[in-house]
Amino acid sequence: MKALITTVPFGDRNRQPLDALKHAGVEYLINPLGKKLKAPELADMVSDFDVIIAGTEPITDEVMAKGSNLKMISRVGIGLDSVDLMAAERRGITVSYTPDAPAPAVAELTIGLMISLLRSVQVSNLHMHHRRWHRYFGRRIATSTIGIIGTGRIGKGVIRHLSGFNCQRILVNDLHTKHDLGNNPVLEWCDKETIYKQADIITLHVPLTAKTKNMVRREHLELMSSHAILINTARGGIINEQDLFDMLNRGHLGGASIDVFQDEPYTGPLCDVDRCLLTAHMGSMSEDCRTRMEIEATDEAIRFLKNEPLQGVVPEDEYAVQREGL
Amino acid sequence: MKALITTVPFGDRNRQPLDALKHAGVEYLINPLGKKLKAPELADMVSDFDVIIAGTEPITDEVMAKGSNLKMISRVGIGLDSVDLMAAERRGITVSYTPDAPAPAVAELTIGLMISLLRSVQVSNLHMHHRRWHRYFGRRIATSTIGIIGTGRIGKGVIRHLSGFNCQRILVNDLHTKHDLGNNPVLEWCDKETIYKQADIITLHVPLTAKTKNMVRREHLELMSSHAILINTARGGIINEQDLFDMLNRGHLGGASIDVFQDEPYTGPLCDVDRCLLTAHMGSMSEDCRTRMEIEATDEAIRFLKNEPLQGVVPEDEYAVQREGL
Repeated sequence: MKALITTVPFGDRNRQPLDALKHAGVEYLINPLGKKLKAPELADMVSDFDVIIAGTEPITDEVMAKGSNLKMISRVGIGLDSVDLMAAERRGITVSYTPDAPAPAVAELTIGLMISLLRSVQVSNLHMHHRRWHRYFGRRIATSTIGIIGTGRIGKGVIRHLSGFNCQRILVNDLHTKHDLGNNPVLEWCDKETIYKQADIITLHVPLTAKTKNMVRREHLELMSSHAILINTARGGIINEQDLFDMLNRGHLGGASIDVFQDEPYTGPLCDVDRCLLTAHMGSMSEDCRTRMEIEATDEAIRFLKNEPLQGVVPEDEYAVQREGL
Repeated sequence: MKALITTVPFGDRNRQPLDALKHAGVEYLINPLGKKLKAPELADMVSDFDVIIAGTEPITDEVMAKGSNLKMISRVGIGLDSVDLMAAERRGITVSYTPDAPAPAVAELTIGLMISLLRSVQVSNLHMHHRRWHRYFGRRIATSTIGIIGTGRIGKGVIRHLSGFNCQRILVNDLHTKHDLGNNPVLEWCDKETIYKQADIITLHVPLTAKTKNMVRREHLELMSSHAILINTARGGIINEQDLFDMLNRGHLGGASIDVFQDEPYTGPLCDVDRCLLTAHMGSMSEDCRTRMEIEATDEAIRFLKNEPLQGVVPEDEYAVQREGL
């Protein structure tokens, strides 16, 4: 039994998942390219393996076609935009994921990015490292209207963290359902257009699907106020990167914080915009959450190989999203 | 009646304080050097003025000696380390300040700096702007032991903001009094040495006094764990900058965030340390807090000149700190 671990780093801070594989008698290979694989690279690698313990690299129908032994995909994380669920279903490949584990890390990071952007921390830090001193004005969370698009596990976490900041107004929207957000008098459900127009801070916590691809593009960025800040710790492709660059470049928006990109590693033009705070897909990269994700995904793969009941099988509604283009 | 405004920027986002001076018939001059003044520069400037609406530049006995008309110092902010209160008392110069106004901005910024440091946001951002992609591991507030030295207005604000993060353990210390911090089961009063040894995050919210000058130096930095992070949004001089540089340079500490410096503008060796997050004394620089500070300090100066009751006179215990070297 052989497992291909494509996501990197893996087992770096905590060897428990690797030890578990060894203990279960599973041979494993960790992605030898050390970076996010493209579909052809993965297709060249996959032939021998029973299981992929997967990151966010594209697991397309073509990839699966090359994996003649492939019986299971165990995603380290929550997003399923990278996995062709229809193809997996057709081919009888089981798909599991770890939807709860990354949320605490992403939600905390989002608050830090908000404050950094509101106060131009990243701009001041870049300049200070070039020995340029300038005291930037900023704004506060407490006096800002906050817009949260996506109120699942991560959006809820953001709202919880904001509870200690005396926020006056949090606008919320979700694609599908009005999640139960408790009895919080500062929350207002509204449509996305209202959020684009009225929020000082907009943070995205939706999955990448046919419906959210390119969800925030030129026409939406133009609705935002000139000082608004935009945060994407969800998935690359939800914001149109070229449109965002054009807008920032011509002076619109107070700033943006982008952790996820259409192509990773990212080396595009946003790298030249000082008030664009950039991080390398690090949302889930707290030691505790990353370790939990790796352990959960590995244990699930081992359960599958041992024919034990699974705990993280992707539910039908995730298939419906891809089947029906929701 | 003439007022010298030394702190810059001033009236930049909101002209209300300048309009108030004009309306009250007060002539004013805004610091023409556009940067924090040194004592001799201020001494050369001060001769004509009745009032200084002051930043953090040194208002020494020598400066006051040159201000033959000087009757009042109205500090825009809270710290009084820059004002020789003994000399002011001797010369019959009234000193007022705005101790409440900066706190909300400093407390919010502190949370943002914590998360940035815990997640290496500033390091990733520096690298991404050089098109270098690396996914850094980080830690979370929720799983960290937090140490807060100084539990006055700002330290209390930090504790309030942390209430939404599900912290397990917050160690607190104050120089003088055990402030009433409510009934919060995660708070533990302890001595500073315990904080240095046990906290993963240490943030300073004490004034600069004879007692806190050089309070955190080599021997204290050595007590901290190798991954600990240290934040100073209080005053330059509380942490020994050379010792901090030496420690960071030899790989000790996870990182540091320094907003305040012994000499400002700062251009010292910390500028070369990537994991030292640097900002340009921006703690109080949110538009709302800065405006409130400027309005309060200006209104106080006008009340003084009109011989109306003052609202922000520096209390006796601040004099005692300087008189008794507390």
